[in-house]
Amino acid sequence: MYRKRFHFPLGKIGIIGGGQLGKMMAQQAKRMGFHIAVLDPTPNCPAAQTADEHILGDFFDENKLTELVEKSDVTTYDIEHVNTAVLQKLADAGHDIHPSPHLLEILQDKLRQKEVLREHHVPVAAFQQADPPDFPANLQFPLVQKVRHGGYDGRGVMVLRDRRALANAIPAPSMIETFVDFKKELAVMVARSADGEIKCHPVVEMVFNDEANICDMVIAPARIPQHCAERARNVARHSIEAIDGVGIFGVEMFLTQDDDVLVNEIAARPHNSGHYTIEACSTCQFEQHIRAVAGLPLGATNLLSPAVMVNLLGCCNSEGPPVIEGLHEALSLPGLSFHFYGKKVSLPFRKMGHVTIVDTAVEDAIAKAAKAKKLVTVTGADRSLKKSRVQM
Amino acid sequence: MYRKRFHFPLGKIGIIGGGQLGKMMAQQAKRMGFHIAVLDPTPNCPAAQTADEHILGDFFDENKLTELVEKSDVTTYDIEHVNTAVLQKLADAGHDIHPSPHLLEILQDKLRQKEVLREHHVPVAAFQQADPPDFPANLQFPLVQKVRHGGYDGRGVMVLRDRRALANAIPAPSMIETFVDFKKELAVMVARSADGEIKCHPVVEMVFNDEANICDMVIAPARIPQHCAERARNVARHSIEAIDGVGIFGVEMFLTQDDDVLVNEIAARPHNSGHYTIEACSTCQFEQHIRAVAGLPLGATNLLSPAVMVNLLGCCNSEGPPVIEGLHEALSLPGLSFHFYGKKVSLPFRKMGHVTIVDTAVEDAIAKAAKAKKLVTVTGADRSLKKSRVQM
Repeated sequence: MYRKRFHFPLGKIGIIGGGQLGKMMAQQAKRMGFHIAVLDPTPNCPAAQTADEHILGDFFDENKLTELVEKSDVTTYDIEHVNTAVLQKLADAGHDIHPSPHLLEILQDKLRQKEVLREHHVPVAAFQQADPPDFPANLQFPLVQKVRHGGYDGRGVMVLRDRRALANAIPAPSMIETFVDFKKELAVMVARSADGEIKCHPVVEMVFNDEANICDMVIAPARIPQHCAERARNVARHSIEAIDGVGIFGVEMFLTQDDDVLVNEIAARPHNSGHYTIEACSTCQFEQHIRAVAGLPLGATNLLSPAVMVNLLGCCNSEGPPVIEGLHEALSLPGLSFHFYGKKVSLPFRKMGHVTIVDTAVEDAIAKAAKAKKLVTVTGADRSLKKSRVQM
Repeated sequence: MYRKRFHFPLGKIGIIGGGQLGKMMAQQAKRMGFHIAVLDPTPNCPAAQTADEHILGDFFDENKLTELVEKSDVTTYDIEHVNTAVLQKLADAGHDIHPSPHLLEILQDKLRQKEVLREHHVPVAAFQQADPPDFPANLQFPLVQKVRHGGYDGRGVMVLRDRRALANAIPAPSMIETFVDFKKELAVMVARSADGEIKCHPVVEMVFNDEANICDMVIAPARIPQHCAERARNVARHSIEAIDGVGIFGVEMFLTQDDDVLVNEIAARPHNSGHYTIEACSTCQFEQHIRAVAGLPLGATNLLSPAVMVNLLGCCNSEGPPVIEGLHEALSLPGLSFHFYGKKVSLPFRKMGHVTIVDTAVEDAIAKAAKAKKLVTVTGADRSLKKSRVQM
């Protein structure tokens, strides 16, 4: 999509999904002079608060998807659970949609995703299909059941420790995977243009909240030997080339006990593990995504400073309009940036915002981030809940 | 304004003026969860494209100013030429307005600004009042005439080389100042809270376009000896304490041939010389301003990487809807970030956008910035102008 001349706006970008990823995408795109339209069913959703246009509608509504795509020079996503059949029709009719609906359809199905990666010799854990209550014979425990469709942030994933646990398996079409005894979970943001230009951000460590299985802390750069980081970047780059991805992708990986790298999952959009790039890299993941889907040259991905990001999750026993406490104290920590997404309701473990700390030493950034995490609480003002409920 | 609890939005911030400074302020504020209302006479002005609300109206319209201030928890500015009398009444009635209308009134008058600085022992060039055609006796040439009210971006400033030049002086109430034979022009962004917390960003060099007298390139950090940088930061800090400023201030200074520092001018708002902070500092000038006026702790100001900013000015012989050329080539330069403000019309020398380059070596960043400046042109699509005209 090389253009000699740009008029203002530089182009119209449609975003399917108006959550925090759409909001941050819109902010970077508007900084560069693009026009942003968002499709989302929630009035005044986070991205709508920064976009030029908001089409109120569902991600599976053919008319609304068509309206968005037809008014946009290029359409992209902030979520993956969309109607790919409609988008495929629109792409076939000549509309620019990145990543391609065909790829999105593959990635939506965790089994097909892994099959495609394995076909392309991307290292992954051993896996096979399983449709509870039917399971293959000769299972090696422990193993991990992953529901093929619709899981996110830990939903639809279950560790099965022994044969008896199979009775409690999630009753949905699934894949089962060898349980990987990993040293660390790693992630790399990989951007790729339609013309094949490809760039990786640094390798980061993801630390998970065991209770909610949501990423709790991202540490950049990962504290791993240089050869592991190189291996991780090479594997991540190869994965995105293998699937012919256009846009930015979050490649989640395991670093095994013997320093091998296995791809766990690929997100076809900006990713929680790349939020730190806003403050810490030459080009952030959101700008990089916009550059990739708009056919512009990719930006430099080098780290300007070590950085640590922590998510601010809605507290586990309340819901309602968000109430933030501890903000003054957190903002007193040198190097801290505060992001609040503008969701109208806090729910247990819902991602309400994040903070990023930049510091000259990564261990100092980790200590400050842990402190910030304790200081800042987001609760729902309406009522206390007895039982915790997990919601995005 | 310490608060234990914040609800969403964190607060309502009113911005008088909807240009690029308001746009970038709004983007940082909305990232943190604030609600932004903008007062500006231009439909779909840059800040309105990112704000929550736009009040269409003039900066001197009492009703509109009152409407903005009354609906905002705190009101601030993106320009200095506003109706301070109305704002003073509103401040007296208990509304939070930062910087204070009283201070703004002083700074609007270049003579009073310098008088106040001199009273507080801030180093400034020798100056006195002059109201052409009347001039004091015993003038030392060359000297600089500065119109007291309404000048910006080089308008209202004239170098008078000898006594004969007085006949060409601008016929308006003015101050005349010793011509400073400086080595470099420097600038420091200084932020100060209502409770007196104060922080300075690094010292930068400003390089001017001689034709338009608009800042052409900002180099961070300034290539000056450490003791000069310390002196500049101390003078800048003292200046803002002296005038009891709240918010962020751009302090422009001269570094004289004998390494002395003289304050040239103070802008009571984010400043062109601080745009580089978006990419290159822990906390950018826009977030810092929001923190200061909202009563939040100030952020760290350290430089994460050397950086150079160049303005993208409307080309000197055309006007009309902006047409950008050379963008692809510029975006191929590693470390380049592109900002386009969204003004509907390009005019000669109008600030249409800027680019910032981060690089490990400042000289490399300068070379890339100079290249970017040559590559990217912004012209007006409507017609070519014979004569150049200077407009903001």
